[in-house]
This record gives sequence, structure tokens and C-alpha cells, in this order.
Amino acid sequence: MRRGFGSDNHSGVYPEVLQAIAQANVEHALAYGDDEYTARAVRKIKETFGEQANPYFVFNGTGANVLCIDTMCRSHHAVICADTAHINVDECGAPQRAVGCRLLTVPTHDGKLTPILVQQHLHGFGFEHHSQPRAISITQPTELGTLYTAEEIRALASLAHEHGMYMHLDGARLANAVVATGLSFRQLTTDLGIDCLSFGGTKNGLMMGECAVMLNPTLDVEVRYRRKQLTQLLSKMRFVAVQFEAYLTDELWRRGATHSNHMAQLLKEEVSRIDGVRILYPVQANSVFAQLPRPVWTALQQQYFFYDWNEAHDEVRWMCSFDTTEEDIRQFVAALRELMEKYRAGH
Amino acid sequence: MRRGFGSDNHSGVYPEVLQAIAQANVEHALAYGDDEYTARAVRKIKETFGEQANPYFVFNGTGANVLCIDTMCRSHHAVICADTAHINVDECGAPQRAVGCRLLTVPTHDGKLTPILVQQHLHGFGFEHHSQPRAISITQPTELGTLYTAEEIRALASLAHEHGMYMHLDGARLANAVVATGLSFRQLTTDLGIDCLSFGGTKNGLMMGECAVMLNPTLDVEVRYRRKQLTQLLSKMRFVAVQFEAYLTDELWRRGATHSNHMAQLLKEEVSRIDGVRILYPVQANSVFAQLPRPVWTALQQQYFFYDWNEAHDEVRWMCSFDTTEEDIRQFVAALRELMEKYRAGH
Amino acid sequence: MRRGFGSDNHSGVYPEVLQAIAQANVEHALAYGDDEYTARAVRKIKETFGEQANPYFVFNGTGANVLCIDTMCRSHHAVICADTAHINVDECGAPQRAVGCRLLTVPTHDGKLTPILVQQHLHGFGFEHHSQPRAISITQPTELGTLYTAEEIRALASLAHEHGMYMHLDGARLANAVVATGLSFRQLTTDLGIDCLSFGGTKNGLMMGECAVMLNPTLDVEVRYRRKQLTQLLSKMRFVAVQFEAYLTDELWRRGATHSNHMAQLLKEEVSRIDGVRILYPVQANSVFAQLPRPVWTALQQQYFFYDWNEAHDEVRWMCSFDTTEEDIRQFVAALRELMEKYRAGH
Amino acid sequence: MRRGFGSDNHSGVYPEVLQAIAQANVEHALAYGDDEYTARAVRKIKETFGEQANPYFVFNGTGANVLCIDTMCRSHHAVICADTAHINVDECGAPQRAVGCRLLTVPTHDGKLTPILVQQHLHGFGFEHHSQPRAISITQPTELGTLYTAEEIRALASLAHEHGMYMHLDGARLANAVVATGLSFRQLTTDLGIDCLSFGGTKNGLMMGECAVMLNPTLDVEVRYRRKQLTQLLSKMRFVAVQFEAYLTDELWRRGATHSNHMAQLLKEEVSRIDGVRILYPVQANSVFAQLPRPVWTALQQQYFFYDWNEAHDEVRWMCSFDTTEEDIRQFVAALRELMEKYRAGH
Repeated sequence: MRRGFGSDNHSGVYPEVLQAIAQANVEHALAYGDDEYTARAVRKIKETFGEQANPYFVFNGTGANVLCIDTMCRSHHAVICADTAHINVDECGAPQRAVGCRLLTVPTHDGKLTPILVQQHLHGFGFEHHSQPRAISITQPTELGTLYTAEEIRALASLAHEHGMYMHLDGARLANAVVATGLSFRQLTTDLGIDCLSFGGTKNGLMMGECAVMLNPTLDVEVRYRRKQLTQLLSKMRFVAVQFEAYLTDELWRRGATHSNHMAQLLKEEVSRIDGVRILYPVQANSVFAQLPRPVWTALQQQYFFYDWNEAHDEVRWMCSFDTTEEDIRQFVAALRELMEKYRAGH
Repeated sequence: MRRGFGSDNHSGVYPEVLQAIAQANVEHALAYGDDEYTARAVRKIKETFGEQANPYFVFNGTGANVLCIDTMCRSHHAVICADTAHINVDECGAPQRAVGCRLLTVPTHDGKLTPILVQQHLHGFGFEHHSQPRAISITQPTELGTLYTAEEIRALASLAHEHGMYMHLDGARLANAVVATGLSFRQLTTDLGIDCLSFGGTKNGLMMGECAVMLNPTLDVEVRYRRKQLTQLLSKMRFVAVQFEAYLTDELWRRGATHSNHMAQLLKEEVSRIDGVRILYPVQANSVFAQLPRPVWTALQQQYFFYDWNEAHDEVRWMCSFDTTEEDIRQFVAALRELMEKYRAGH
Repeated sequence: MRRGFGSDNHSGVYPEVLQAIAQANVEHALAYGDDEYTARAVRKIKETFGEQANPYFVFNGTGANVLCIDTMCRSHHAVICADTAHINVDECGAPQRAVGCRLLTVPTHDGKLTPILVQQHLHGFGFEHHSQPRAISITQPTELGTLYTAEEIRALASLAHEHGMYMHLDGARLANAVVATGLSFRQLTTDLGIDCLSFGGTKNGLMMGECAVMLNPTLDVEVRYRRKQLTQLLSKMRFVAVQFEAYLTDELWRRGATHSNHMAQLLKEEVSRIDGVRILYPVQANSVFAQLPRPVWTALQQQYFFYDWNEAHDEVRWMCSFDTTEEDIRQFVAALRELMEKYRAGH
Repeated sequence: MRRGFGSDNHSGVYPEVLQAIAQANVEHALAYGDDEYTARAVRKIKETFGEQANPYFVFNGTGANVLCIDTMCRSHHAVICADTAHINVDECGAPQRAVGCRLLTVPTHDGKLTPILVQQHLHGFGFEHHSQPRAISITQPTELGTLYTAEEIRALASLAHEHGMYMHLDGARLANAVVATGLSFRQLTTDLGIDCLSFGGTKNGLMMGECAVMLNPTLDVEVRYRRKQLTQLLSKMRFVAVQFEAYLTDELWRRGATHSNHMAQLLKEEVSRIDGVRILYPVQANSVFAQLPRPVWTALQQQYFFYDWNEAHDEVRWMCSFDTTEEDIRQFVAALRELMEKYRAGH
């Protein structure tokens, strides 16, 4: 399929990752993570997020998010999140089914929670008729391609902890945030008070696998039973573990994330020059959201697969990948410009 | 790690499978299964199990089993299975948590259900205080390495259908059964009345991934929502799909299954010659169960990892893999013989 | 406890209901609803809501709501409701835990859904990442004491049915709506396209018990197993059944509902005369919502128990019961007036 | 309906209980248990079971059992119980659905667990593939009408505690056990190490309502949220609370339990005299299990409602109630004798 801007999970895998998998394909290894490959990957995670970090490798982002929520909450609890959060809109209700808890959602302008927005749900503590707020969950970068600053995250984490709540970070694209903020993985998570992290790499060149990382040791209880019961325990664990090992070796993660962030800037600049296209949010990571006339974006979808993000508002999303090229952008923008000019000529 | 007999998921991956993965790592592909690789794998499944077969690729065996049970049952239903069934003892209660249903278990001599054994649970239909029997689930080959004949499966399927129930087959090692029975995949499932199949390959040389196959079209409703909600939907689906495509191309599956079955026979013959080792079940696939003195098997575990299957009865399990060698067996048997002789000398 | 305006479930029980219970306390009766008392109550429900109506007696409103949702939805479905809906805010997440589905909430001005408000959630059909909209749930009268007209309900039901969805009505105080609209129970539910109804009486003089009524026969499948499994099946069913029989005999329900509606009007008129008290929604049933200075309402709570509805907005709720007297209102209003005057004097 | 021996929940309610309900029907009371009636009932429970006892009133026995299991276990845990346990066979899978855990069942001769029987499930601790044993649950008197001695319970509780597990007692008919053993409620529960109790009275003359009593204070955490979420929180709590208050006042419970136990002895003696009827278990509480020819018991069911307990073995159950009379027994035995004689004459 032609490279486009549908999603950063349309791309393939880093050669280094494939190579690591191939190199792990020797002899036998204990299953379910009791092997040397997994031990090395655990070490890498600890080096990256701090010694207290304890990773539970799982299959995918929904699995990591559900395991994190399941670790923080029982069914009478609630998680506060933006209404655009992946856990709210893109997981077919997996958290509700698996954990039975509520998600308390907040509309936002840019996909980011703030203490004031969260505050509206911080009541009813001790009232048995209300689900008890137990965690705040943010996505970094957000589903709208925006970034929290370190101070913003710290403020939310403090608010959570003041209320005896936990702070979760959905980091499906965390490398893009690290690159964009200039902070380290640890500075952007553990050091800000994140208790529990979904750490992904599939959208940045891994094949599959994600990692639920317990950063707060008090949470790290009985998690492995829960992972197994939630169907997220892999037998030949080495083949996921080595992906994370490779990802965190020689900053492989930085290469793709730097590139895809850069490509998103380029894409934004190019499409901004087209009359009739409006960029909707600050482009801070690897996605560009735009508003443009429906006949134009639906015609463009004949040539390229991408998602309408909010059909009612003619809002579309374009994602850049670790392997997006300038030529990809040139062609895409040319196609868009042509359609837009045709459209404007007709009006 | 030294190759041993701990489990057939301690082994690695067929070179052909790795190669297929590498070849799929080009350009972009739509995520979540809307890609040409997945389409080709679906085609292979249909060629293998019949045109009505519709596969849902998932991550692992527990995922496939849970998705199958979730498709057949609502929470007030029950699944009848052997008490040794993987869904009963080895999934940490995943079916109960995900589906909320009951498993009605039956003790067996050899891991195999029979109509008479099932019959004891076929009552209470229409009585609202009792979970309603809704499916029979068998494993082929069984968790004890034994095989159902085609006739035996047909009889169970008929019994299920007579009671308006479904018939599920857990085929984590189905290739071993196909090789051992001389029947085809289709003859061993679809043609016998299996409605719903967990089809695995990880224990026979795939890297990861399993497949919930709907063989009865009336079951094939809303399954994809359930897969997503159960956290079993992979984004870069092509990398699981090509494993199944490779597995079902040029009978790759047959190579490993034939070999591991053969190795199990060899292992059985060799250990049978050792005084004090008792083989417990017919060795019909790739596992050998044996009873031997505790001091012997615990000492052997110092050299080789393997599971005690029933500690109370000094029952242990030895599994052969697609890459087990005759030399592996020779060394293992020698070690066992030496320990046994030492033990017998001491008594 | 002094009679106040805390909730209509602070009141006791109609003498007629107690008498019916006492009269049922003779001899033996089959348990779980297979008795003549229950048969008579079922008959009354059918006379009230139409022949196709099939009631499942349960213990309480949360039980009825959960059973209704469980009947309409599987876990990958979603229910669209007002964000003020009892199922959303006052059941500690019971629907999410029991059914695993999502509630898609809509902010409203007056507790009432409209087709335009619902429309924003009517998308993503067929997209496996999104919970599939399956039901619309309204409360009549609403949690804010407002009423839907028959036309408004019909429009919502039509919208639901056009999208293959079901229409649920939470009628914990349905009698108050019947009295206020001048329509019959049937005209306000079955005839408007309601598929599934939670029919309560506890807030209008019953002791306990509620009724999940299937009005759409296609929904009436396996409900009794679900009721049992949801812990909502009563053994000595006659003692709930006779309450409903009494309630629906000689329009006992009308007496209390007429009175409590009338008392709410009186209360509204009286408090409206007090400077500084603002009535917030149309008073159409038996509740009055008001906004008034915090020092005043908190002081009043020293004398009377009632709920702050939205503490941030100084919004309180006062409910009238079937046994509220004009004298109760006179005393309450006098106390409020005195506190308000003292407050205003201080400013 | 003619008084028979179908179940002790076919009977009605003690006059004292009805009177207590009527007397509570005055003025208003706070809902959901924040009322003086409930406070008095809590006091009675503490006097009965010890100061640390904390009761959660619920609607029925399934509700109490599920709340107890939910308090002791998370979904990856397991409860060990007799295969005849009510939680296993008579609740349509409510524990599995609500809690998601497994029940590990044991066949017994007389409905009673023993340490040896339990032991077979006490393994796999720390193995993430296996549900972790977390509680032992016994029923006293058992579902087969037999009794545990104090020593037997103490031994099971010790075994549980040695393994870090909890001990639950399903006491739906606990009064019958108290009467039969001559011990007090407290001596039979708290003093023996029971952590968590389902305490019922409906089968002994209450109208409805049961009580989940936390005897181990470490379990008494967040239970009230769980009760609410499990749909087991009653609004007009006073009407259940006063039933328990009456039940525990002047030993009302003793009157009915003494009588029903006595009637069971009489019934046993009478039917034992009939040739062809075999009594199956020690008659120690208020039930009699018998084996007799199918034509006889099915003919008897034309005159009297009662359950076949195990149809395959021609085993039936006859329960005595607090209001069973000697005349009831005389008539029943006469009918049985006549049918049996007719049957024997025909052979």
C-alpha cells in the first residue's frame, strides 16, 4: 500500500527490531518471561524510567491501558480523563468491561486535562452512590497531537495524590513527547509523579507489544495474575522483550520519533499554505489535524487512507510515521492542493 | 537455554515464519486486519477448514479460547469440559472473568470427555437457578497428550447439537492431532460438527498469534467488536497473518508436528526402558506423562526445566518440540537413567 | 425523624400496601414467583401497560435499571442518556460493572434528552473500536423534576428504532408523570415506543420492590436467568407482588402522586416568594430545585435533611412525598424565610 | 397453597415480624440505612456475633453470598467449596459473573468439606496461570441438612488462615444449626474463626432480607460501595432492619428453628417406617433427603410440590418450615404410604 498519513501503525518495523527478533530465535527459552531476554529488557526499562520501574510486557496498547486501570482501580472506582482519551473512545469499552469502573470524562479544547477541568469530578468522596474517583489518566502526546509540559503534568499528579488518587499516563507515542520536550523518559514520567504508565513503541517502529510499567511500587501487587487473567500474557515472551531492548538501545526510539515529529512540522507548513485548510491544534508531535471542505477531504480519501476525526466538523487527522519521506509529503500536498483548487474554482 | 522438555513453547520459530515476517515489512499496510496480508491468511484458513470458516486472529491461546467462549455463551450459560482442560486450570480464571459464565468440569481418566461423562451435566435446562449448559469444549490433542477419534468427536458434537448447544475445540496443538490421526484439519473439525475453534501454532513453531475460527456461521455475529473489547485486536495485523499464511503453505505445520510426535514416541520408548518410570497415558501426540520417584524427578529438574503435572502423584510432563533432536533425548534419558540408578541403589 | 424534603424514599408505606402484605401472609406459596399472588400482579401490569407487557419483579430501582440494560445490551454496546441520569450518577457504576457497557452521556439544560442531543452519539456504527450505540435511556419524570411530553418521547423512540436501537424508560416515579400529563401509564410508555421499562413505586408509598417490564416481546428472552444471576430474584415473591397489585388497584398510585405533585407546586409557590431563592427548573412533578446562598441552605440543613444537588452552584433539591402535609411546607418555608432574612440582614 | 415440604421459603412470615414492620411505618426515616431502626438492628447483630461484627443488610441470600465473596476475593482468586454448595449450583453463576473468580469444588459424601478434601486445591500458590485460592466457603447446616461440629469448622478455618485465606460461612439457615448444636451464634461463627458470614432469616420466618456480616475487621473495607454497585442497597432500609431486630429479640429465631428441626425428625421417623424409602443423610437440621422409587415420588408430586434433588438417583428433598404441623406430616406420610403400597402391590 502507498505510504500515506492514515496512522503511524500503518508503517512497518525498524530493521534493528527485526534483527533483534531473528537473533533471539536460537535454542530454547523459558516461556512467560522467565528468560534472559526478558530480564535484559526489564533492565533497560529500569535504566530508562528509574530503578523502581517494573514492566509488564503485554500485547498492545489497549492491553496495557486495561492492565494499568485494573491495577489502580476496583469496579466502584472511576478514572478521570479527557473525553478524547483513547481509553474512552477507541477501545470499545474495554476498561468498562474488564474492570467494571466508570470513566469520568471532561471536554477539553486541545485534548489536555487541567486541574480546573479535573476538579469538577473531585466530589462525592465517601458517598456510596457515586463511583469513587481513583485515578487521573492523561495521554502524552495527546490524541490531538498536543503536549503537556512537565509543570502541567506535575500539577495534575499533585492534585491526584492530594486526593489519594493515582496518576496514569498513556504513552503510546511517548518517544515523540520525549523528543519534543527535550526531557528524558524518566523526567517526563517518574519524576513528575506518574504512578503507572502504558509505554508503547508499535506506533514508532516496533512490531507489536506494549508495556504496563508500574512506577509506584505500592501498585505493584498481584499484577502478574491480572495480566494473565486479562489474556495479555505471551508465551514466547523473548520476541516482545527483544523489541523493547532494541528500542531502548542506542536511542533507536529517538530516530523515528525525531523524524516523524519533523515530518509533521513539514506537513503542517505545507498544508498551511493551501487556502481553505485550517490547522486545528498546535502541532507538537507527529500528527496534524485540519479542517477543510468535505468535498475536498472525501476526494482526497479516494487517493489516500486517513481518518475523519470529527465528521460533523469536517476535521481530519494526518499522522506521520518513522518512515514518512519528504517526497510522501510533497505528493500528498500536491494532491490536496489540486483538489482544493478544483473545489474553489467550482464555488 | 539448553533444549529440554519443559514445553513446546520454549522453542523458537521456523525460519520460514521469520522470513515471512521480514518480507511483510515493506511499505505501509492498513491496520487491524484490513490489509492484503490478512486477506491472504483468511484465504488459507478457508482452504484449510472450509469456505464457511471465518478466522479472527488474536494474540494467544487464552485470547482465542476466551473469544470463542464469549461468542458461544452469555454469562448465565455454562461450558462443559474436562477438569484438566486448559480453560479450566491454566488461564487463571480468564473465562469466568471475561464472560462471567461457569465451567462445568468432569474428571476423566485420559483428558477426554465422553457422552456419558457429559450427560451428568445435561440437566436443569429451563431452571433459572442453574447456569444453562451452552457448549461442550474439548482439547485435541488433550492436555494429557491423548487423542479423540473422529467418531468420538462426532458423538460429542451430536450430543451438543441435540441439546441446542455448541461444540468448541481447543486446538492449540491441532497440527499434532492432524498428523497423528491422518485426517485433514477440516476432517477433524468442520466435518465433525465443531462450531468454533481455537487454532494455534505457537507451540509448533510460530512466534505468537492464535486464531479463533468461527466454523458455524450463526456464531459469526459481532465477534470483531468482542475481540477488540477483549484487548485481542492487533494493530499491525500483517505480522501475525503472515505467520499463519506461512504455516499453512506447503504444509509447514506438518513438518514440525510430525517431528515432535515422532520425538515423543522415541522419548516414551527410551524412558520406558528405565526401571521405575511408569508412562501414564497413551502417547499419541508430542507429550509424555510419567510417574517416577520424587527424588529422581526433582533431581532431574536441577538439570532440566519441566513441570510436575500432579505433584501429589509424582506425575511429570515432558513435551517434545518441532526442534527436539534425538541427541536431546539421548542426553535427557541418560541423565534420568543415572539418577534413577543412583536412587535405586540407595534403596 | 421529622418529616422533611430530603427524598420521597424517606417516607413510609401506604396502609393499603401493608394490609396487602399482611393478607398475603397465609399458608404456603411457591417461591420465586410461581404463585398466585405474583400471577395476579402480572395481570395488573398487563392491564396497565398492555398485554405484551411482561414484568420481572426485582428488589430496587438499580436492580431494574441494570436488568433492563442487561437485556438490551451486551458489553460492546452503549446506552445514550442524559448526564444527570440516575444510571449514570447514582448507581456507583452498577451498569458498567454488571453489563460492561458504556454510557454515552449528554449534558442537558433540564435533564431531558432531545433528538439533536442524542444525534451527536449516533456515529461509529460498524467501527469496532467504538462501543456500538444500542439504547436510549430517559427518565420520566427526569431527575430534575421535569417532564417529557408524549411527542418528545415518541420522537426519541423513533430515532432509536430507526437506528436499530432500543428505548428504555426509567420510571422510578412514573406515577407522578402520569398524573402530571393526564395520560395513562400505557399511553406514556408502550404506545410511544418504549421497549423496556423500569417501573417503580417505592418513592410513592411501596415498601420495596421494583419491576423491569419488557414491553417489546423481542427483548423478552432469557431475562429470568439474568435476573437470578444479577442477584435480583426474591424467594418469597408474593410479598413484593402484592405491593404492586395493591398499587395498581383502585388507582392507589394516583392518590400519592397527585398529592406529592400538588405539594411540590405549593412548595415552589411559597419559596418563590422568598427573596434570594431562585427556582431552577420547571416544577412539573414532585421535586423543587432551588439556588440560594450557601450560608442559608447549610443552616437550613441543620434543621432538615436534604441534598445539595450541585454544591458548586449552590443548588439544592427538595422532594415532596405522598405524605407531605401543608403544615410540613409551612414550617419548612418559615424556617427558610427566617434564615434568609437573617442572612440578608447581615449583608 | 396446601402446606407441604417443598422449601422453607414457601412459608410466610412470623406475626412478630409483620408487627415490627407495621410499627416502623411511621413518619420519615433517612434512607439507605442512616436511620435509627438500622442502628438498632446493627446493635443486635453485634450483640449476637460480637462487637467486631459489622452487618451489611442486603436483599437475599445470593446477594449476601456474592457480597461476601466480592469482599474476600478479586477476580484472579478462587473459593473452595463443596460441589453441592448453594454458591456453586443454585445461583446461576452469580459469583462468577459478579466477581469473575473461580469456585474450586470438591465432591463430598454429606455436603461437608474436610481439611483433606480442601487440601487437594491448596497448590499453585504464586503460579500466575492458576487462580489463587483465597477463601474456603462452607454452608451450615449444609445443603444436605447435615451439620459441621465446632471442631470441624475450627479445623477448616485454621487451614484457611495458615494459607493466608479467608473463611466464609453461608448461614442461610444458621438458626437451625444453632438450635441443633446447642452453641450460640457467636460460638458457631466468630469464635471459630469465620471471617465473613451470610446470615439469613427468610427461610425461618422473615419476609426478605439477608445480612453479609464482616466478622474480620480487615475485610471491612469499601464494602458499602460494593453493596451499592452490586444492586443490593435498599432505600427504605428500616423495613429490612426491623425484621432482623425482631428476629434477634427474645430469641424469636429459636422458636421457628427448634420447631422445624423437630418436625424434620418426626418426618424422618415416619417415612423411615415405610418400606422402600431410604433416608440418605443424617437428619440434623430441618431437611430430609430420601431415595424412593420414581413412580412413587412423581405421583406424590401430583399432590405436593417438592424438588427432586438428584433425578438420576431418585433422590428427593423434603423441607420442614417454622409453621409445619404434625398434621401436615401425618397427611403427607399417609399419602406417601398409600402410593408406596400401591407401587409395591404392582411389582
